[in-house]
Amino acid sequence: MTNFQPSPKTRVNRLPKRGHYDRETIYQILDEALICHVGFAEGGQPFVIPINFARVNDTIILHGAKASRLLKHIEAGNPVCVEATIVDGLVLARSVFHSSVNYRSVVLFGTGRLVTDEAEKMSALEAVVDHLIPGRWQEARLPTPKEMNATSVVSIQIDEASAKVRLGPPGDDEEDYALPIWAGVLPIREMPLAPVRDEVLPAEIPTPEYVKNYSRT
Amino acid sequence: MTNFQPSPKTRVNRLPKRGHYDRETIYQILDEALICHVGFAEGGQPFVIPINFARVNDTIILHGAKASRLLKHIEAGNPVCVEATIVDGLVLARSVFHSSVNYRSVVLFGTGRLVTDEAEKMSALEAVVDHLIPGRWQEARLPTPKEMNATSVVSIQIDEASAKVRLGPPGDDEEDYALPIWAGVLPIREMPLAPVRDEVLPAEIPTPEYVKNYSRT
Repeated sequence: MTNFQPSPKTRVNRLPKRGHYDRETIYQILDEALICHVGFAEGGQPFVIPINFARVNDTIILHGAKASRLLKHIEAGNPVCVEATIVDGLVLARSVFHSSVNYRSVVLFGTGRLVTDEAEKMSALEAVVDHLIPGRWQEARLPTPKEMNATSVVSIQIDEASAKVRLGPPGDDEEDYALPIWAGVLPIREMPLAPVRDEVLPAEIPTPEYVKNYSRT
Repeated sequence: MTNFQPSPKTRVNRLPKRGHYDRETIYQILDEALICHVGFAEGGQPFVIPINFARVNDTIILHGAKASRLLKHIEAGNPVCVEATIVDGLVLARSVFHSSVNYRSVVLFGTGRLVTDEAEKMSALEAVVDHLIPGRWQEARLPTPKEMNATSVVSIQIDEASAKVRLGPPGDDEEDYALPIWAGVLPIREMPLAPVRDEVLPAEIPTPEYVKNYSRT
């Protein structure tokens, strides 16, 4: 896969070795992140909204109620910023100054359009469900024409993107390694717990494998 | 604790029963969330940056390198939006349309100032470390004057805020309850794994209790 060209908007200036511009790194982070954070501006006032999403090729798919302020803003072709971050752990250096977080984040910029073609819209919704939990779309009751009509789907073309990644152990100043202070990484993972059946679900309906074996990675 | 007054910026219009404006709910979410997502705008262009933080009374503390573009923008008194979200689970309704995510999110608005008083700055940094991992500040090597000088701390006064919360089982359309489709919630938690010691850490330094017993809640 090809690289995005770093621009003043996406170039990682602070700690440039943490910056990545290749689609493979960027798209893997986007595909693993459960939700994203969409930024938009109205008259200089910034807004950030958390929302679930999917990446389809070089686009980000968002969906919601037709009346959604966020989606209307995107449909109108205003610039948006989409950010997604996976926290991988706490980095406990001997010094507070070098303490950090291990993370993988993506910041991307683009503009969106309303998806109006019915087949494209259905396939975009499938991508959003697949992003959350693969296998579900094949089993769940699919949207009716009335439900489709109540739903807006937007597709944001990714114009620019970069990833920022910090991995590995703490890096302390040379003289601090002699300090009698515990140092290391406390890994953090977003993990599923045991599924909770709907109370009114008949006992003979088994928990599907895609629910029992759920994992983000 | 008192409530924030809903405004056009913070009122939850879609599914208003999910909206909360009391400080107790809002601050509990902020205190549990590991990182936040800061939105700002430059000439109509929105940006969203993930960053760790702390809440201190009615303010949000951010810190970073003195050269940080985000911090300089905030220091200049520009409006910012801070968003934090905790995903609690996937809500698998029988229909795709009613499928959802259980989550607790906060969106807040305010303006910031550079923290210049040295004691206030040190105490703000302590709050940021405490937010990530309580107990660490007491053990780690604290910042030197040179490190303090390389670090900017900003304090954002929370002018307006709201929380949006979805909890509980799926809610399907009446006629869908008869469908032979598994339904329920797959809970998701951000959890620590076993701590990874720095390879060069002397064996006699034990893993601290605050690392071994780490939990976000």
